[in-house]
Amino acid sequence: MIPFNVVLFDDFETLDAFGPVEIIGKMPKKYKLGYFSINGGIILSSQQISINTLSFSEIDMSGILLIPGGMGTRKLVDDVDFIEQIKILVQKASYILTVCTGSALLAKTGLLKGKNATSNKLAFDWVCSNDKDVNWIKQARWVNDDKYYTSSGVSAGTDMTLGFISDIHGEKTAENICGYIEYIWNKDKNNDPFAIE
Amino acid sequence: MIPFNVVLFDDFETLDAFGPVEIIGKMPKKYKLGYFSINGGIILSSQQISINTLSFSEIDMSGILLIPGGMGTRKLVDDVDFIEQIKILVQKASYILTVCTGSALLAKTGLLKGKNATSNKLAFDWVCSNDKDVNWIKQARWVNDDKYYTSSGVSAGTDMTLGFISDIHGEKTAENICGYIEYIWNKDKNNDPFAIE
Repeated sequence: MIPFNVVLFDDFETLDAFGPVEIIGKMPKKYKLGYFSINGGIILSSQQISINTLSFSEIDMSGILLIPGGMGTRKLVDDVDFIEQIKILVQKASYILTVCTGSALLAKTGLLKGKNATSNKLAFDWVCSNDKDVNWIKQARWVNDDKYYTSSGVSAGTDMTLGFISDIHGEKTAENICGYIEYIWNKDKNNDPFAIE
Repeated sequence: MIPFNVVLFDDFETLDAFGPVEIIGKMPKKYKLGYFSINGGIILSSQQISINTLSFSEIDMSGILLIPGGMGTRKLVDDVDFIEQIKILVQKASYILTVCTGSALLAKTGLLKGKNATSNKLAFDWVCSNDKDVNWIKQARWVNDDKYYTSSGVSAGTDMTLGFISDIHGEKTAENICGYIEYIWNKDKNNDPFAIE
């Protein structure tokens, strides 16, 4: 089983993390879900959900990394120790999925330089300011470049995770998950109804 | 502020609860989110998220009640004490929203007799068997009857919660939330692409 490691921090946006988790959880024989924060312990989402986490030191780093966004990212981009630890996790992970302003945390590691990526539309300029050497694409539901998958705001992370499953396991597998959870999938990563010019 | 009380139990389906929570959390001046289980303490979702909850005895019962579904409901429909406590909460709540097989728990209280309701499509027959005196509607993304909102499987709960917000606060408010979280809302409660005849 491949570890699917969800990074949590205070004030993360609930659906950024738990939309993708819902999708990955439908493949329990392939992926092992785990929830981690820098020091472990209780994390509070922006929607006041209190979640128990393990610490970054307990992550099987060869797995896949999910980094959600949320208001908590505003402070964390300036937290040198946090970004340094995220950088190590990103370097070792087989794939990295970021949702919404989670892209800002990934960009801040410097590892996204020269890559294509996207993020939340309402916070787009702020996210881009974290590394101007990323090829930020505004009109995209999600973007895949190399081992990086980055999505637009909140709900786009669920569409992206289905896109990730489709890329790895085939579209039929992704569609079967949609049937099970009655999810109307926006499967075209270029169809972004929320891009504002 | 109106309490928005989320009922949790082991093996609840993550998105059943946290899709609606994402929507309600976008109206922090109107609704106060809280997470409750029969005895309080740690609850584990089907996707292995460990959540800290308060106990049913700590609920402000005048609020709104959200009951998710998930595999945990299969055992709970036969748990007389749990159903009795849910019945009291449902009687006192101003509105009740159920997602997926959460409808089975609501039906088991007997309070849905003669009302229109829906549920998950793959588990539909099982849900109906919990009270045949409910007017179960198969082709529906969600159904509203009196103070009861019931939705189809998992993702339908998010559409329903936006429908609830639209009914109470107007469609523009619901659409603003969609813009913020980049959610493509299926706003027609009769548009159910997953109904199987």
